[in-house]
Amino acid sequence: MIVPQSTLRTFTQNIFLAMGCSVEHAHLAADVLIRSDMRGIDSHGVARLSGYVLLWDKKRINPTPNITIVHQTPTTATVDGDAGLGLVVAPFAMQIAIEKAEKYGSGWVSVRNSNHFGISGYHALMAVERDMIGFAMTNASPLVAPTFSNERMLGTNPMCYAFPAANYPPVVVDMATSAAANGKLEIAQRAGKSVPEGWIQDSDGNFTTDPHALKNGGSLLPLGSDREHGSHKGFGLSATVDILSAVLSGANYGPWVPPFVSFLDPPTDPVGLGIGHFLGAMRVDGFRPVDEFKTHMDNWVNRFKSAQKIDPNQGVIIPGEPEFEAEQERTITGIPLVDAVVKDLNELALRFGIEMLH
Amino acid sequence: MIVPQSTLRTFTQNIFLAMGCSVEHAHLAADVLIRSDMRGIDSHGVARLSGYVLLWDKKRINPTPNITIVHQTPTTATVDGDAGLGLVVAPFAMQIAIEKAEKYGSGWVSVRNSNHFGISGYHALMAVERDMIGFAMTNASPLVAPTFSNERMLGTNPMCYAFPAANYPPVVVDMATSAAANGKLEIAQRAGKSVPEGWIQDSDGNFTTDPHALKNGGSLLPLGSDREHGSHKGFGLSATVDILSAVLSGANYGPWVPPFVSFLDPPTDPVGLGIGHFLGAMRVDGFRPVDEFKTHMDNWVNRFKSAQKIDPNQGVIIPGEPEFEAEQERTITGIPLVDAVVKDLNELALRFGIEMLH
Repeated sequence: MIVPQSTLRTFTQNIFLAMGCSVEHAHLAADVLIRSDMRGIDSHGVARLSGYVLLWDKKRINPTPNITIVHQTPTTATVDGDAGLGLVVAPFAMQIAIEKAEKYGSGWVSVRNSNHFGISGYHALMAVERDMIGFAMTNASPLVAPTFSNERMLGTNPMCYAFPAANYPPVVVDMATSAAANGKLEIAQRAGKSVPEGWIQDSDGNFTTDPHALKNGGSLLPLGSDREHGSHKGFGLSATVDILSAVLSGANYGPWVPPFVSFLDPPTDPVGLGIGHFLGAMRVDGFRPVDEFKTHMDNWVNRFKSAQKIDPNQGVIIPGEPEFEAEQERTITGIPLVDAVVKDLNELALRFGIEMLH
Repeated sequence: MIVPQSTLRTFTQNIFLAMGCSVEHAHLAADVLIRSDMRGIDSHGVARLSGYVLLWDKKRINPTPNITIVHQTPTTATVDGDAGLGLVVAPFAMQIAIEKAEKYGSGWVSVRNSNHFGISGYHALMAVERDMIGFAMTNASPLVAPTFSNERMLGTNPMCYAFPAANYPPVVVDMATSAAANGKLEIAQRAGKSVPEGWIQDSDGNFTTDPHALKNGGSLLPLGSDREHGSHKGFGLSATVDILSAVLSGANYGPWVPPFVSFLDPPTDPVGLGIGHFLGAMRVDGFRPVDEFKTHMDNWVNRFKSAQKIDPNQGVIIPGEPEFEAEQERTITGIPLVDAVVKDLNELALRFGIEMLH
């Protein structure tokens, strides 16, 4: 089914309103999810809406959070999300980072007591719209084993860096720090296909191509896949995300991070509050004039796009470009939804008395 | 040969003095190189001393730079290194970041017109000593091809994040954003050994295990090795380092970065000045009390060290721990130097009339 973004937006807003969110929060949360679908990141858009509802059912998401700054300096702050939707808490925190950057050149906010915040790119791009460089990262449910271990200790912990350009779209590096994101495994599971070696290990710590190994005590591997190919670097990046997001803010870290899936209970011995994010903004003109920077960004993009190709039909992909193109296209064509997601959304519609997608 | 650090330090200082550096700069530059050897990162210590001298011979390194701030806000700055040693320019820039962080919570400095800065960890640890979180990155000579290309467009562009702990040593994530660092290739070349698939590609863009392929038009691969295993993420990280270090500061970026080896001339159509770095510091107590943070860092380290092992003899390695242990050990034992390095250093001693290592 292909649904116009306006239809899907209204639908999503109505679900959040039914959960008890304010109009402002429902619109914002829906905007984050719809933007993900628009950018072609289907795994993090409305496909996750029922996941948020299930966490709300378990009273793990507070629909009316009192989001507060608990500590700050002119350019740093710690925010408590009051167990609200990360979709709402993270933009609140990024707004603080942007305001600090406007006054002092840069702003950095670590967030505790939050939940899943959608795509990192949404938050980082808030800064880009103000001619700033945006940073966004979050920790997540433990699925990834550090190098030399077969224990799930870290989430897929994404990091995002976003840079404005002039005529080209913004350069947006938005990546899980694992070799493969969980969404790709789910696709293989549904299709009954094997996955490449280097994505997951089984419960004994051996490489496996069985996408179901994760459910049977296996774990995702850090970017780099094994020690010889630099998995200790993927582990280091994931550790960095965990520390900036959670050790710094007072959220749960490592294996204590509460799971996104509602059927697993959070650990009973938490080391902090909820999950953590880290958001930052730096004014480009804190370093050099904006037009100079953007002109050189265009030159950077242009040079990399014209790098020598191995396959004449496949050039270098600039980070953020496929997502930008998807957004342009889906503005016109609408958002394609697979049957499982439509079914999922229409069950929510029935439950909350909202008009179904058809 | 095993040399006490004090002997090697004096030797190195004397070389920099002979190049015309001030006493202060000679001591600082030697400190950066010796610290690298002390931390067991032999590829970036005195083994590179002759490389700096050769660049000075070519007048590409200015021994008496007038390092200046060319642009700033309360928490951001751009520094021009005046073609000085990166070993001196980067600590100058980090000092500015630290002073800004002391006043405003955080400080961020992008650097142009510099040269190779040694190990990232040295600079990031300057912040850690002040109970701050340290960031350091640099771009470098183009050796790495982006995903889908066989053209050398990026350096091994390292990034470093360093965090203080209480009883444990600082957690220091200090990593090249390529699958393997160039130093590892050089070791395989000298030993006449092949390297694992996924480190390099030949000039046609095919995986190769021949460590000499790099000399014959091949290229290093980004962290992740190939698209299926996330090489686009390694490329994205390397791009991030390049943009923050050079597009932001006005240094050369991408394939325009001047080569470290003196026998290759810099491009004749530069897009900026020298190579670029990016350094940052954030006060821990800008987010939460230092003792709280450090206590949780210790808990983080402790939990990861006790993660379930695949091989009972090999536990999880905490980033920065092997380097800390090397530093402890080499303080007592001295610094081991391979014959080729001793020969190289003694040629410098002969040339400059300095007492040889023996």
